[in-house]
Amino acid sequence: MQKHLDLTAFLEITATAPIAAATHGGRAKCLQRLIRLDLPVPATVALSFDTVRALASGQRLDTGRLMAAFGEGALVSVRPSSADPDWGGPGAILNIGMNDARHAALTISHGAAVADALYLRFIRAYASNVARLDADMLPGGEASAETLAAALAAYQAETDEPFPQDPAVQLAEVLRSMARAWEGTTARLLRQARGAPADAGLGLVVQRMALGLGPGVSGSGVIQFVDSITGRPQITGRYRAQAQGREAMENGEGTLFLIRDPRGPSLEDVAPEAFAALVAHGQSCRRNLREEMQIEFTLEDGRLWILDAVRVQRSSRAAVRIAVALAEDGIITPDEAVLRVEPRALPELLHPQVDPAAARDPFARGIPASPGAATGRLVFSAAAAQASAARGEACILVRRETSPEDIRGMHAAAAVLTERGGITSHAAVIARGLGLPCVVGATGMQIDSRNRTLRAADGRLFREGDTITVDGTTGEALAGAPRMLEPALDEAFQALLGWADAARDIGVRANADTPADARMARAFAAEGIGLCRTEHMFFEDDRLTVMREMIFARTADDRRAALDRLLPMQRADFVELFRIMGGQPVCIRLFDPPLHEFLPTSREGLRELADALDLPLSDVTRRVEALSEFNPMLGLRGVRLGIAMPEIYDMQARAIFEAALEASRSGAPVVPEIMVPLVSARREVELVKTRIDAVAAAVRTRTGQDFAYRFGVMVETPRACLRAHEIVQHAAFLSFGTNDLTQMTYGLSRDDAGKFMGTYVSQGVFPEDPFHILDPDGVGELLKIGAERGRRGRPEVTLSICGEHGGNPESIDFCRSAGMDYVSCSPFRVPVARMAAAHLALRDRSRARDPVESGR
Amino acid sequence: MQKHLDLTAFLEITATAPIAAATHGGRAKCLQRLIRLDLPVPATVALSFDTVRALASGQRLDTGRLMAAFGEGALVSVRPSSADPDWGGPGAILNIGMNDARHAALTISHGAAVADALYLRFIRAYASNVARLDADMLPGGEASAETLAAALAAYQAETDEPFPQDPAVQLAEVLRSMARAWEGTTARLLRQARGAPADAGLGLVVQRMALGLGPGVSGSGVIQFVDSITGRPQITGRYRAQAQGREAMENGEGTLFLIRDPRGPSLEDVAPEAFAALVAHGQSCRRNLREEMQIEFTLEDGRLWILDAVRVQRSSRAAVRIAVALAEDGIITPDEAVLRVEPRALPELLHPQVDPAAARDPFARGIPASPGAATGRLVFSAAAAQASAARGEACILVRRETSPEDIRGMHAAAAVLTERGGITSHAAVIARGLGLPCVVGATGMQIDSRNRTLRAADGRLFREGDTITVDGTTGEALAGAPRMLEPALDEAFQALLGWADAARDIGVRANADTPADARMARAFAAEGIGLCRTEHMFFEDDRLTVMREMIFARTADDRRAALDRLLPMQRADFVELFRIMGGQPVCIRLFDPPLHEFLPTSREGLRELADALDLPLSDVTRRVEALSEFNPMLGLRGVRLGIAMPEIYDMQARAIFEAALEASRSGAPVVPEIMVPLVSARREVELVKTRIDAVAAAVRTRTGQDFAYRFGVMVETPRACLRAHEIVQHAAFLSFGTNDLTQMTYGLSRDDAGKFMGTYVSQGVFPEDPFHILDPDGVGELLKIGAERGRRGRPEVTLSICGEHGGNPESIDFCRSAGMDYVSCSPFRVPVARMAAAHLALRDRSRARDPVESGR
Repeated sequence: MQKHLDLTAFLEITATAPIAAATHGGRAKCLQRLIRLDLPVPATVALSFDTVRALASGQRLDTGRLMAAFGEGALVSVRPSSADPDWGGPGAILNIGMNDARHAALTISHGAAVADALYLRFIRAYASNVARLDADMLPGGEASAETLAAALAAYQAETDEPFPQDPAVQLAEVLRSMARAWEGTTARLLRQARGAPADAGLGLVVQRMALGLGPGVSGSGVIQFVDSITGRPQITGRYRAQAQGREAMENGEGTLFLIRDPRGPSLEDVAPEAFAALVAHGQSCRRNLREEMQIEFTLEDGRLWILDAVRVQRSSRAAVRIAVALAEDGIITPDEAVLRVEPRALPELLHPQVDPAAARDPFARGIPASPGAATGRLVFSAAAAQASAARGEACILVRRETSPEDIRGMHAAAAVLTERGGITSHAAVIARGLGLPCVVGATGMQIDSRNRTLRAADGRLFREGDTITVDGTTGEALAGAPRMLEPALDEAFQALLGWADAARDIGVRANADTPADARMARAFAAEGIGLCRTEHMFFEDDRLTVMREMIFARTADDRRAALDRLLPMQRADFVELFRIMGGQPVCIRLFDPPLHEFLPTSREGLRELADALDLPLSDVTRRVEALSEFNPMLGLRGVRLGIAMPEIYDMQARAIFEAALEASRSGAPVVPEIMVPLVSARREVELVKTRIDAVAAAVRTRTGQDFAYRFGVMVETPRACLRAHEIVQHAAFLSFGTNDLTQMTYGLSRDDAGKFMGTYVSQGVFPEDPFHILDPDGVGELLKIGAERGRRGRPEVTLSICGEHGGNPESIDFCRSAGMDYVSCSPFRVPVARMAAAHLALRDRSRARDPVESGR
Repeated sequence: MQKHLDLTAFLEITATAPIAAATHGGRAKCLQRLIRLDLPVPATVALSFDTVRALASGQRLDTGRLMAAFGEGALVSVRPSSADPDWGGPGAILNIGMNDARHAALTISHGAAVADALYLRFIRAYASNVARLDADMLPGGEASAETLAAALAAYQAETDEPFPQDPAVQLAEVLRSMARAWEGTTARLLRQARGAPADAGLGLVVQRMALGLGPGVSGSGVIQFVDSITGRPQITGRYRAQAQGREAMENGEGTLFLIRDPRGPSLEDVAPEAFAALVAHGQSCRRNLREEMQIEFTLEDGRLWILDAVRVQRSSRAAVRIAVALAEDGIITPDEAVLRVEPRALPELLHPQVDPAAARDPFARGIPASPGAATGRLVFSAAAAQASAARGEACILVRRETSPEDIRGMHAAAAVLTERGGITSHAAVIARGLGLPCVVGATGMQIDSRNRTLRAADGRLFREGDTITVDGTTGEALAGAPRMLEPALDEAFQALLGWADAARDIGVRANADTPADARMARAFAAEGIGLCRTEHMFFEDDRLTVMREMIFARTADDRRAALDRLLPMQRADFVELFRIMGGQPVCIRLFDPPLHEFLPTSREGLRELADALDLPLSDVTRRVEALSEFNPMLGLRGVRLGIAMPEIYDMQARAIFEAALEASRSGAPVVPEIMVPLVSARREVELVKTRIDAVAAAVRTRTGQDFAYRFGVMVETPRACLRAHEIVQHAAFLSFGTNDLTQMTYGLSRDDAGKFMGTYVSQGVFPEDPFHILDPDGVGELLKIGAERGRRGRPEVTLSICGEHGGNPESIDFCRSAGMDYVSCSPFRVPVARMAAAHLALRDRSRARDPVESGR
């Protein structure tokens, strides 16, 4: 026979009862707090996780005694109370205790309508949740004596038993069914998907019902004191007379405004004292629970009952404002405010968003590759995008896929939409760098570039110039211009990030190639530029021609002559960057890509090039072919080019030094950092450093001015990680380029991985796309080896990572533990990185203070 | 004032004097051995390394006393005696002691001609080597009283001193100048380039001259008892009457045959007793010095003197025969015979060579990419090569560079010559695999493929059909057909390799893709196939069409239908391989390359493909473009293809299993090994293994026959090395693919590295091309990590390396120390690998026996 549980299995919630979220769940704990604040909470009993587990395994509770504790004739509700409300749980069941006798008594005290309604509601809830009958097996319709009788008859017909009349039996069955529901496979999978541990427990809260139906001012509602979207102080909520529980959430007869309103009656009007008490309770909750709470309340014949309080749901921008306000009011510390905003929530604030309340008309769906939304006129080519930008018209660039030739078009566009590609495609990476909303891999639409039309999967035809919107946060393309919310870089945002900066212990720089990037980096308070790629500077029209002359030069002298013409342009680029960064460190990566990236491939492009260089087409074609490579990623680029054609790095170094001198004259002194890419052997670094030191000496001699600079290495081949102790002998800093390192560690080209990455992640071959989330096992081990050996070889070396991974919280965690000095990421990731770094540092400190608590 | 050296600084060589090669040099040691054998060696004194060093630094020796030791009026010679004769040293100086008085005495005893000749020779040698006068400062011409007087006068005019008359002074100056010459920078660099340590010492040997000029049978010569080219027993050498030292080496008056000869007089005729003694001394030397020696001798008025003996110079094939003969005669052990042949010398034996004595007419020079020589008719295309082979005519394929489309042409050719590419270019790698002589990067010649002509740098024009010869050992292309030496896979070679097999402790397999490769692997006694690449099997004409149909299939069903047609061909390939290998293990790598390698790129090829597949050209072009990749090396290939299109591996596995059953029925049971390429994560292996196990089960069910197979992983990404402990959970063996691993560790494409590898190696960035010599630091560390973690994860796992590096002695050394079970290399490298493995094992054993001796 089954054992009865001990009577201590239930525990009345009082100010002193031993209730903890870890044993009885968050709701029970919160109710105890409300009780401690002397809020009018109806009598409440909590069942612990252990008790509910025992119930699920078949043990019984003395529910007769439990019902008796609530007093003769009381109705009760049961609500779930798990450790985290996000983990879900069975729905609340109200009005337990209704039976024929209670129905008769209520008919006398509250009238037949109330009695019928309460009994019918309970029968329906019990039938569905405990007896597991389908909803259509009981008669529908409004409560009435007939419906009630029919429901009782139907219940008996379906279950072969009369509806249970003993409140103790009713409660026992309700508790048992809720305990079992928690153990069901679906519920378990759902909550584990939300982060619940495998052994997550369910507590249950049994509370005496405040009816909300009946004589006098009776009804139920919820109230909160901030706006969930904006986070601004504002009383919002709902109240409905003659209602209980979730009914208040539905508009209908009896719904009132909460506060006085010219449009109609309000709670403040009909129950001013109760309303004032509610507001006072709200303030008390905020101050004492140190959080913005939504309060669930019931008025029972004019008397206010507080049934429950939950954390206010909030948008990311509201989360920032709420946390900052709590800290500014002295309720929480700035550190706590920082910890209350998830780093991942920030990107949403940095971009305009489609208003969640606006109507949406999606015509294509793809991969959300870069967040934010933008509206503009449809264009199908980089040239059209630039023309549109020149006219001052926002445009959306739509391409099958993008290539380096589209970069200036992307700069000109407000957003990008491509048919092909994945999260790491060219379009996606560039768009994230530029902070452009971007959707890639929007399959199903047909792009006709020649006729400049786009046919959506649903058949709609869009033409160049049509207005569309790209929502890079959801991965949708929308017809027209839905209402937008502007970015939220307000004072609250700045305050929070300032507190984050005070808390964190690892630096954050930005990857910035252009003045626009650099300005953004400053705006987001990056501590300098960690990666300035110089190759983009050669793609501009006037420079590209000179660049091509340089590539086609037959001798080192001819090459130098072309480079001499590039020098002033490069110098001007750097002067501008240095000025924008105002003395902050700027780490410039020397020329990296293979030269053939600068050459045309189309027949027409080759012909134009032949004309420009005044060479026979066959000659140009042959040279272009000779420069092409089987695997450009692994070819003649980076330091290899620097050694094979040292004139390029000479020119760049000179431009950097001269620019540093020029910028220092009119502003803060500049100490440029020069970084050499794709290193795999110590001697490569030695050779380049020798030449760059010579260039520095020549500039010093020619100008008669002294200056300092730092020389370092981009560590992005597995071999450079393994030989970091040697390489660091010639390097003041090592910056780990995780993009290329990931490519080489996996033997996987980022540009080509799109074809199978989907299959790979869905089959669990890779837990995540390693270009998106740093692979801690393979790439991570190489990073750790590199950092450790680099530090060992030169203890004062500056270590950092740059690349797409730099801004991810996981990467920052990794970099801190690997002893790195800073991370560098795209400007739009800088706020996330600052927050994530602060979270990690604060958690470490709290762990150090209280190892047991935080170790759980 | 300068110190005089102690008298113990010189030591007469006797049977018991404390002479060692390490203190007095090899020549001194060898002379002592000759003395111990009672050979008639003139009185000889040895100066140690320390003494010579002291002389070089200015100290003096009591040369008067030394001259006196040789007896009144004796002439002496001085010869160098370094630890290794290959390290060079100053030339011998003869006739020290000649002066006016001795000249007068010799004029009486031997006649004026002898006296004049000896004195003049000494003056000339002294002037040039000691006084450092230019050769043309002394009068030339035959010895005579006038020439002699003119020489003495010229000496005095140039040096302001009379020619030194004191033999002690002469000797002191000769010793000092030889000691100083050894310390010169050029001499130092030269010997260090030959492997000498920085502190290598020079000993000197002072020997009483046996004159070789004068009355009776007088003269000098050298004799040896084997042929230096073939190694066969044969008395060869030279003798010249009235000659001394190197004069015997020059034909001229007095030159005789050594042994009786119908063409003229011989030493055997004129001095039969001395000749018989020489032969007896030769036998004694061989038996007691345990080596074939060349003996330098002088007859002085009929009396035989043995001046010196040196190891016979020998070709690689002679080295093998000599070592084997010594072992077969019981003079050395088989292990010693193995150690006496350098593994690197073997490739020369495996290929025909241009006879070193033949006339050569080179018209182009390039990089010797694959050893051996072959003659044939010039062809300019793969098709022409195949046509030529079909006619049974040897041909030489000449291309600017080769691509995979040329492979069948290379199979058909006798040798390959390309204008472009380096040691790791496609042509070079394939040629080494095929064992074809190959010269790449032969710049300066102009190939006109359309007109089928080749213009050499010297202007000569060659047309298709002209006979040329490629010498892959020297890197030359020769006009015509010089005389060749055939490969030397004779009994001696087989005996030696057999002894090597008995000595070694690591397995050697061959990389073999075709039946021809497999037969070669058997011929070279590989212990199985370590890497059978299956992709070549799909390039044959009939298969390529089906392959392309497979690639263009729209559905998995269509793909399977095409694969079903490939299945019997694959199965037949494997049956043949299994039969050839007769039950030895065969490790088959599943399909690896990206699919676009099987598609045409030219416009014409695309049109043909469209015809063949009955598809619109635009459709075919678009599909081909869609399959193209930015970095094919890092793209959709290997296991990624196996997971994205599992039907391919399914087909291959089925073909392998069915072939194993078929081959086992008629021969030794076959246990195939199946290897999956390009793995970077454990789950990849798991997914493929699951499917292959299912295919095995299906084949077992269908045939009702059981069979075993082994499943393993090709470890060729850095990540696979780092995660070897996980990956090995699903693998019975791990084979490290060092080619791809090198590419990824360096971030360096083998196909593209040619453009700068030359610069890199010459500037010392890389000490060696890492595709040629395994990089021990970077790639090596990953291999060690992979081997160690693989072994730890599964102690019984079989570990090996395959790839170009497999046959190199350095790699084998590395693999032994990393605990690998076997190496696999191209068939032509197998003998080298067997020898190298034996050397390593024997050296380890000798080190274990005698740690001090071998530790030097």
